[in-house]
Amino acid sequence: MELTVENIDMETKSPTVVVNKQDAAELGVQPLDRIEIHHEEHNTVGIVDITEELVESGTIGVTRKLDYLSGTVEVEVAPKPDSVKYIRRKLDDRELSRAQIDTIIKDINENRLNDVELSGYVSGIYANNLSMDETVHLTEAMTEIGDTIEWSGEIIADKHSIGGVAGNRVTPIIVPIVAAAGINVPKTSSRAITSPAGTADTVEVLCDVNFSVDEIKEIVSETGGCMVWGGAVNLSPVDDKIIRAEHPLSIDPDGQVLASVLSKKRSAGSTHVVIDIPYGEGSKVDDLEKAREMAYDFNKIGSHLGMEVSCTITRGSEPIGNGVGPVLEARDVLDVLHGEGPEDLKLKSIRLADTLFDLCAVDESATEILESGAALEKFQEIVGAQNGDPDVESDDLAVGDLTEHVHATRSGTVTHINNRTVTDVARRAGAPKDQGAGIYLHKKVGDTVEEDDVLFTIHAENQDKLSDAKSELEGRESVRVRSQKEPLIERA
Amino acid sequence: MELTVENIDMETKSPTVVVNKQDAAELGVQPLDRIEIHHEEHNTVGIVDITEELVESGTIGVTRKLDYLSGTVEVEVAPKPDSVKYIRRKLDDRELSRAQIDTIIKDINENRLNDVELSGYVSGIYANNLSMDETVHLTEAMTEIGDTIEWSGEIIADKHSIGGVAGNRVTPIIVPIVAAAGINVPKTSSRAITSPAGTADTVEVLCDVNFSVDEIKEIVSETGGCMVWGGAVNLSPVDDKIIRAEHPLSIDPDGQVLASVLSKKRSAGSTHVVIDIPYGEGSKVDDLEKAREMAYDFNKIGSHLGMEVSCTITRGSEPIGNGVGPVLEARDVLDVLHGEGPEDLKLKSIRLADTLFDLCAVDESATEILESGAALEKFQEIVGAQNGDPDVESDDLAVGDLTEHVHATRSGTVTHINNRTVTDVARRAGAPKDQGAGIYLHKKVGDTVEEDDVLFTIHAENQDKLSDAKSELEGRESVRVRSQKEPLIERA
Repeated sequence: MELTVENIDMETKSPTVVVNKQDAAELGVQPLDRIEIHHEEHNTVGIVDITEELVESGTIGVTRKLDYLSGTVEVEVAPKPDSVKYIRRKLDDRELSRAQIDTIIKDINENRLNDVELSGYVSGIYANNLSMDETVHLTEAMTEIGDTIEWSGEIIADKHSIGGVAGNRVTPIIVPIVAAAGINVPKTSSRAITSPAGTADTVEVLCDVNFSVDEIKEIVSETGGCMVWGGAVNLSPVDDKIIRAEHPLSIDPDGQVLASVLSKKRSAGSTHVVIDIPYGEGSKVDDLEKAREMAYDFNKIGSHLGMEVSCTITRGSEPIGNGVGPVLEARDVLDVLHGEGPEDLKLKSIRLADTLFDLCAVDESATEILESGAALEKFQEIVGAQNGDPDVESDDLAVGDLTEHVHATRSGTVTHINNRTVTDVARRAGAPKDQGAGIYLHKKVGDTVEEDDVLFTIHAENQDKLSDAKSELEGRESVRVRSQKEPLIERA
Repeated sequence: MELTVENIDMETKSPTVVVNKQDAAELGVQPLDRIEIHHEEHNTVGIVDITEELVESGTIGVTRKLDYLSGTVEVEVAPKPDSVKYIRRKLDDRELSRAQIDTIIKDINENRLNDVELSGYVSGIYANNLSMDETVHLTEAMTEIGDTIEWSGEIIADKHSIGGVAGNRVTPIIVPIVAAAGINVPKTSSRAITSPAGTADTVEVLCDVNFSVDEIKEIVSETGGCMVWGGAVNLSPVDDKIIRAEHPLSIDPDGQVLASVLSKKRSAGSTHVVIDIPYGEGSKVDDLEKAREMAYDFNKIGSHLGMEVSCTITRGSEPIGNGVGPVLEARDVLDVLHGEGPEDLKLKSIRLADTLFDLCAVDESATEILESGAALEKFQEIVGAQNGDPDVESDDLAVGDLTEHVHATRSGTVTHINNRTVTDVARRAGAPKDQGAGIYLHKKVGDTVEEDDVLFTIHAENQDKLSDAKSELEGRESVRVRSQKEPLIERA
């Protein structure tokens, strides 16, 4: 069928074309079907949307991805990509081969699948799981699709947390400890999507985090480590595209998590990786058996891929450190490096760094490196290499000066702090965009409190956001205080 | 967050809004998330798309469904609808309650789910199946969401075919047979989506098919039957919306098929329904056990819903009748009603009509009604009531006069005719839009042929489409001819 091109100034994820209902009926296409478009030297594929009004019969509307088309084009129905067949295979609970997984990942990466098909993929691996072989193949496929970083050294150390715990800013402490021991640790981190701060957001308070692969190599060759934003390098491009379907359904299929994490590590050239699985009420993994299974799978797949992987299952039922939000977390980090700061943040960083030393089979002590000041010195070196002020101290960093103190309504012991509430309130207060916004926890689990003690303080940089944060808190559990003398938890 | 509205002249299925990447980061929303939009007296929900260019930070692009918004609006993150939780529940292989199914169906009907969520629903019931209770609840929920037709009589007869067989135009023969016996049979049919003709397309060759519920009631009270297009009445609005996700994945979850068919029948007020399940190589159901299971489920759910349901499992491994395409099928229908025409079409119509008579417990013979001319008389009455020419005859209907004859390349017996190839070739020839286009089968399964006999003829109304049809045929199996003396089918 011959159609005249009309440009529609609209960005779309996939190469969308808009066809009049009449022409669609004649072609026999339905919404989300594909058509081949032939135009002089171009042959391309468009995903169909159908309209009664936007374009007339005889005309084809093309969105920005196809805006190089003009004049008259010849269109015909295009077959569905093979990956749709393999997605159906997974929905049928049949195992996928390496070649089939490669095809799916390639098509996702090239935006060839529409949202329905992408969701079918995610739903299929969630409903029917991935076997160990499939997970290994998926990891390899995801690694191969992106850029990779090559290193000359034998040991490239790395760590990853599967997330879900507020304030968990161990990376800027672990990286200098490990680098100070002479081990290369080129750490890439993410920015917040739904949290009050990603590691990259926190580090950005202190120095730059956007670097190219060549710049990263230079920083690491100079200092032994780095703390940069992974989004600036193209290590696992397909990951974000898969999240597009996982996020609306709030599902995180285990096999996909394993493959996403390990493919990123492999692309980054890591050889020795510690993976932290925070576990407990209010964190992503609330079942200890589940955390152990996940650790087992990480180890197994890591070894399939020729990486040394060790997992830590850590307490995730309350935030780590006192600060939540970029500046508040950066201050905790600086305090710990200066020998002060929150004990839990310090201990967790030490435990993870020691695990990494064990994994690398080096005889080093994280505690010694931290307490001797060697970690601080290395940290200052890296911050300097990333264009920051090496001598920055905690008090130099401005916290949002609009505050709201939240008080204990009874005396007792803190037994739980809800990560989800802390996260949502800190975000409403402005974090991570307003770097000084967030929450400072004065009390942590195990602390005894008197009625009216300040449990935590909300910091904001503007009054509207402070009010938003306060209203977010209404009716939600944040810090749970129990009287130790009261055995009854609830009547059920 | 306050944003200024900018109109984007784009139709979308759901109420899409376009937000700049920066604002999206501050709000903490990702593509396909929802935001609440407050504007003077309006409070509405938009589904988020994210742009770097199309709208600037501080501005929100609203597509047509929301074009009543203007000026400044206040936006905030909206929670996901409850149905997403229930979709995840199904993906987790847990049973859904009636209330949960109601919520999902209501949200689908009101376009509240995005494509990813809709696909999660379809994928979940495909991967994990629906229990009998869930299927009954789904049927009820789908019935309640649309219009219904009420009838005064005790018996309202109906038939349905689950499809997949080319040329299967039994409806315009069965309806007059049954109506001639004094039983009301208000039949609604579909138009072709991917086939060369739906029953509504074929009937439209002879008379109008677009009628309102009131007009349908008038036609039926006058003649006892009708043959109209179901799409003109709002009997099962949610069905088309679910197909949007089934079609790209080419999945047809059994529970959904059962619920879609039976909810439409119930909405139409049917009390006695025959459901035809064509079975065999190349049809939708290729396994006899599967056909029997489906029949069992239809009976069981029908009786739960208070309907008398009987199923026929019929030969579906070749097209029914000789003609494929609106005019070619209409000619077969007229010929059968005049006592001639293809034997298989006649016999299948008789078998289905007799099954319906048994189900209604009336002592009538379809063969007698057909052979006496009573069926033809009733047919002419209905065609007249639907504004057609009652005296139309087969030869009055013009078949596409551009033809291509396809010859047998060997002598032997026809053992199989591929429905899929016949369908695709007939469509490429122009059917159903070009009413005279399609295929005429000169030989059917069981016929003996000599080398060079014409197996079938392609008809088209224009030369380009005839060429398209010929090229569609290349390399595909259409009519299989086997020598009866040759025992070897293939070396494998």
